[in-house]
Amino acid sequence: MAPAASSQRNHRFLIIADGQFEPMTSKTANCCIRYMPERIVGVFDRAKAGKTVQQVLGFGGSIPVVGNFEQGLRLGGGATAVLIGIAPMGGRLPAEWRGWLRTAIERGLEIWSGLHTFIGDDPELGALARERGVRIFDARKAPPNLPVADGLAAEVNAYVVHTVGSDCNVGKMTAEVDLRDALVNRGHRTRFVATGQTGIFIEGWGIAVDAVVADFIAGAAEWLVLEAAKDADIILVEGQGSLIHPGYSGVTLGLLHGCCPDALILCHQATRDYIGDYHGREPWVKIPPLAELVEIYERAAAPVRPTKVIGICLNTYDMTDAQAREAVERAAAATGLPATDPVRFDATPLVDAIIQGAMATR
Amino acid sequence: MAPAASSQRNHRFLIIADGQFEPMTSKTANCCIRYMPERIVGVFDRAKAGKTVQQVLGFGGSIPVVGNFEQGLRLGGGATAVLIGIAPMGGRLPAEWRGWLRTAIERGLEIWSGLHTFIGDDPELGALARERGVRIFDARKAPPNLPVADGLAAEVNAYVVHTVGSDCNVGKMTAEVDLRDALVNRGHRTRFVATGQTGIFIEGWGIAVDAVVADFIAGAAEWLVLEAAKDADIILVEGQGSLIHPGYSGVTLGLLHGCCPDALILCHQATRDYIGDYHGREPWVKIPPLAELVEIYERAAAPVRPTKVIGICLNTYDMTDAQAREAVERAAAATGLPATDPVRFDATPLVDAIIQGAMATR
Repeated sequence: MAPAASSQRNHRFLIIADGQFEPMTSKTANCCIRYMPERIVGVFDRAKAGKTVQQVLGFGGSIPVVGNFEQGLRLGGGATAVLIGIAPMGGRLPAEWRGWLRTAIERGLEIWSGLHTFIGDDPELGALARERGVRIFDARKAPPNLPVADGLAAEVNAYVVHTVGSDCNVGKMTAEVDLRDALVNRGHRTRFVATGQTGIFIEGWGIAVDAVVADFIAGAAEWLVLEAAKDADIILVEGQGSLIHPGYSGVTLGLLHGCCPDALILCHQATRDYIGDYHGREPWVKIPPLAELVEIYERAAAPVRPTKVIGICLNTYDMTDAQAREAVERAAAATGLPATDPVRFDATPLVDAIIQGAMATR
Repeated sequence: MAPAASSQRNHRFLIIADGQFEPMTSKTANCCIRYMPERIVGVFDRAKAGKTVQQVLGFGGSIPVVGNFEQGLRLGGGATAVLIGIAPMGGRLPAEWRGWLRTAIERGLEIWSGLHTFIGDDPELGALARERGVRIFDARKAPPNLPVADGLAAEVNAYVVHTVGSDCNVGKMTAEVDLRDALVNRGHRTRFVATGQTGIFIEGWGIAVDAVVADFIAGAAEWLVLEAAKDADIILVEGQGSLIHPGYSGVTLGLLHGCCPDALILCHQATRDYIGDYHGREPWVKIPPLAELVEIYERAAAPVRPTKVIGICLNTYDMTDAQAREAVERAAAATGLPATDPVRFDATPLVDAIIQGAMATR
């Protein structure tokens, strides 16, 4: 689970999504295709064989979908790893899946999995991988012996920025991946610290903090910051959920306190008025105005370690350009902070704010 | 894990604390002796055999410590259950322990355990218990398939009171057990909902929320409230940690949002100035004044479901009577709320506040 060697970011993945490759179903597969299409050689799904990923998802270009596993392994000059992009029906590994994974391991391909059941603990597949010296990367498996947080994250020399949000699924991870790339381009040693499954697949390391035992949420955040600080001057810690999310707020507060951030970036989807994970019932938790959200996060952090929101990151994917520009201007005016949609416009306002903050704390 | 039949609160326990029965070591054993001495027939510890519990701990009266397991089982008219009061060294069950537990199960005695390793999952002991129809109660084992919180706790008819605190270990559980007894005495159907190991031993049911996977903290709280509401008009939900505790704040916020309380009672140890679990380092997180803590809790709850602190519960164990009286008066003046130390003085001010609140919401 230590930071990946850069070679691990050069894998060529075949994604298993057999029978479930769909816009709404194969979430892990789809996220990996969205964020690292250049690393995906193909998708294995017998039901959609012959199509392109673009035809199935509406994005992803000419990446092929194949119905033959062996053929899939040969795509793109040969896959170097297999990524499990769906959960098998019923939770247990079907016999067919075992066959595919055995084939991959026998050929020396790594297995990347985000399943709750760890492939490395499977008596057959785990033993085979150890015998062949092949790595099985169970992304949800936290490092053993996580600490209870002890404030050590406050003592690193790196400048720690934490993205927080109005809700789940508003673009916190996207923002940090974009910001990391922009900061690296401007010459800053920067690490993105993944705290959820998709980020872990993209970076090759991290901890899915929502899967750790509750007492160790903050400890996991602390461990991640200490690891990242070994070779970075700026650390971007992925946020999870929201302090006002009825189901996941505990994860959010544990992360906030555990990573001891020097600065926060507040992420929000501009058209969202209510917490969005409660589709089955009438709208419940109303998202307060941005200035109030800034205050909620700064107040929650303050007793443990004071910090400030230094920028607003808007997700405007469902707006016109004119609406988006107006939303960004409104957000900046309402909070007095730099604001942008780094995907639609330009990350510069936030990148500048981070660099200024990092300089000021030297 | 459903609410225990009242018969389960009438067990006569023999506590296993072999080799570790000490004031600072055998925490589970000691808490059970403190809170339910009338249910403990004896303590099994070969090192302290022949003493009374009072001689070892400074409380607990004439409960005997014995060095012979069989003899222990015969104490007090015969034990009906064995309670594991320490964790075995090294984490695994030593062969000797297996012998004791096997003996107990063979005689039809329940096994109550708070170990991280579940006795019920042990191939030998679990099978034996199933064969004999004997219950093994693994207190840390959460019910399967906990939900993500869905706001259902807000819809129960019962009046839900949640104790929150300035820190861990300030008397939240003690307060609620006292309040429960007082409310029952005044004729109100009241349930104490345990969220930690000791409370679970006292009540015979509950969930150790710090041991659930982070995504399900609030869901566990919701489940507990729904269970308790089946036969209670007033529900007292045990709090954990503190919103300003650097290690455990996530658990605290998840509980607060998940149980959707109608009212909060704020617990504080009057002489404590700093969060106390960080002995290894200099004082870190300063506990703010009580009025500010009230505001921190009310603000944190508000976006999900507004609630109010209705009383202050002080722990004054290390003060003189005069100092304690002054501390209670100061707390009441600073917050404008009823305040007391229910252990030293009288629970009435808090009991009255709860009954008034419950009446007002009918």
